[in-house]
Amino acid sequence: MADTTATTALEGVELRSKVTSDGRIEVSLIRVDVPEPAADEVVVRIEATPINPSDLGLLLGPADLGTIETGGTADLPAISAAIPPAAMKAMAGRLDQSLPVGNEGAGVVIKAGADAAHLLGRTVAMIGGAMYARYRVIKAADCLLLPDDASPADGASCFVNPLTALGMVETMRREGHTALVHTAAASNLGQMLNRICLKDGIGLVNIVRNAEQVALLRGMGAAHVLDSTSPDFTDRLTEALIETGATIGFDAIGGGRLAGQILSAMEAAIAARATGSYSRYGSSVHKQVYLYGGLDTRPVEIQRNIGMAWGVGGWLLFPFLQRVGPQVAQRLRDRVAAELKTTFASHYTAEISLAEVLKPEVIAGYSKRATGTKYLINPNKGV
Amino acid sequence: MADTTATTALEGVELRSKVTSDGRIEVSLIRVDVPEPAADEVVVRIEATPINPSDLGLLLGPADLGTIETGGTADLPAISAAIPPAAMKAMAGRLDQSLPVGNEGAGVVIKAGADAAHLLGRTVAMIGGAMYARYRVIKAADCLLLPDDASPADGASCFVNPLTALGMVETMRREGHTALVHTAAASNLGQMLNRICLKDGIGLVNIVRNAEQVALLRGMGAAHVLDSTSPDFTDRLTEALIETGATIGFDAIGGGRLAGQILSAMEAAIAARATGSYSRYGSSVHKQVYLYGGLDTRPVEIQRNIGMAWGVGGWLLFPFLQRVGPQVAQRLRDRVAAELKTTFASHYTAEISLAEVLKPEVIAGYSKRATGTKYLINPNKGV
Repeated sequence: MADTTATTALEGVELRSKVTSDGRIEVSLIRVDVPEPAADEVVVRIEATPINPSDLGLLLGPADLGTIETGGTADLPAISAAIPPAAMKAMAGRLDQSLPVGNEGAGVVIKAGADAAHLLGRTVAMIGGAMYARYRVIKAADCLLLPDDASPADGASCFVNPLTALGMVETMRREGHTALVHTAAASNLGQMLNRICLKDGIGLVNIVRNAEQVALLRGMGAAHVLDSTSPDFTDRLTEALIETGATIGFDAIGGGRLAGQILSAMEAAIAARATGSYSRYGSSVHKQVYLYGGLDTRPVEIQRNIGMAWGVGGWLLFPFLQRVGPQVAQRLRDRVAAELKTTFASHYTAEISLAEVLKPEVIAGYSKRATGTKYLINPNKGV
Repeated sequence: MADTTATTALEGVELRSKVTSDGRIEVSLIRVDVPEPAADEVVVRIEATPINPSDLGLLLGPADLGTIETGGTADLPAISAAIPPAAMKAMAGRLDQSLPVGNEGAGVVIKAGADAAHLLGRTVAMIGGAMYARYRVIKAADCLLLPDDASPADGASCFVNPLTALGMVETMRREGHTALVHTAAASNLGQMLNRICLKDGIGLVNIVRNAEQVALLRGMGAAHVLDSTSPDFTDRLTEALIETGATIGFDAIGGGRLAGQILSAMEAAIAARATGSYSRYGSSVHKQVYLYGGLDTRPVEIQRNIGMAWGVGGWLLFPFLQRVGPQVAQRLRDRVAAELKTTFASHYTAEISLAEVLKPEVIAGYSKRATGTKYLINPNKGV
């Protein structure tokens, strides 16, 4: 047997989310038996796993949170809520499936297969889903060994946000741009991107939605921070684009006019710097905005005052990592480990237990998707 | 001297377009002296040059054609028209410059420099602007020698439309797609694309705007022709996408919802064929729509029911040719010459003189941008 420690079967607890054919979402905790690890696997006791925007879609779907009903037991609580009929069509792919949730997390290796004994007792970070659980069986190769002085909380968010921020910079370079624009820039992700750009000397135009967020990023040394709700936003954005030369943007908002406004301001900034001859097709400089989120679910609207050299499209971390290949991905991961407590530090609003994830008053907090608030789950809290 | 024929200076006539600071456009014919060709140049007597949609923007700008005033002389007529104030901002780059017009054309070489004597008397096609003129001095290397049995009219449109249609197919292949969608598909360009796809066995979904255009393309052997104004358009489009597997589209319309509708139908078609597991990010198959025209000048509107693997952007022939490099460009050009009278045959509504280009009743005809109507200028007609 590969097991090098305990021999009795572990009992775990796992969070599941299910959309039912009759138009409800059910989120519950269930007991599960934790299998023994195979030779190349470990069992991790998860102590920190964040609620990212990318987790919320699977966790709560498009539920109407005004309709929450509670159920289950004190140990294994459950909730359910109605899904608006118009939103059910998009749920077809997950109907009546009890799905585990939680993209990433960190914890301590408590069992290890024969080939992974060196990890026993070590703190590791993981990505791969099903992290909202007390234990996770995972291949040793899919664990990132954290430095000795790093806690699970330090490493809980070391994949999605850090690799997304580094992926943006990498995409910028690979596609021939030299500076970039970011929206919802006061987020944990935005703060990381700001630290990366300051450290690497890359021009970054931060777009936020209120004066507090402007102050926050200015306090962190950001040179260009613009409030999209201020009346002179378009002019200020164009100035910042002239100064930085940014011709690529990453937009978390997704819907409405912002992506198009960024492209228009890029074209105006290029025209302001240009000395070439007239072309009725606009500038020949390619302008790109990638939508990596959907905080605003309205249609994307793009004015055609941007010439012909432009693109808008979706951007996701995992397809990006596949595109660049394992060597580049490893380089990015190594940087995250090396700068875990500085460039890639995350800050959390609250640490909650698995049972608290299902409390309506807690749901009201983490479901707001407000920039700058982020919750950390400790599935072994209060156990 | 490089001149191998006449020694007296040629007097030419050239069409010019100018936007004035006081908000008018002036289009006129002027007399010009035609310089002697350098050693590597030829002088071409232009006998056929088309009015493409890509020429109209430079020729008439955003003029209000209800305000046309005529002027000049019988030999050298001129017109002017008002430009709506809102459209003047976009004219900044061409203000008060007298610009020659006409992207492509064909004619007979009447003078040749020492290194280009082999072209004397031959019929050639050209691209490079300033074709709305009686004569054009051009580098021999920029001429495409036409087959002996080809007239200037046969070769007049052998760059823009043929290379655009071939460029779409080339882009489809280079970006990993196997079939494509085309809008405004009854145009000369659309008919060429249909012939290419039939010949090469490529799936093509043609989108047109009325029943006559459906009948026209069906009569030319097109398998999938959809009328975007019919009530079951979305369902029929999805069916055609399931059948062809098309995941890239080229859209001449540009504004409004059509590009987004195509992406939505692609995503629905992929979902209908898929057997994989649920992802809240939608399919992982990249869906792309390129806008290569702007028949509709409203903003582009894209619903977010298309997953995250998608892109929308501008597409232009010349940047495409630069991207693929001279060898690919030459391969495409060779195919055009070889299939000039079959795959790449163009059809014209009327042949007009340079003076007729400035007649209000003729302008009313060629400025309509109606699919299937195309005018050919013969600058040496009636001379």
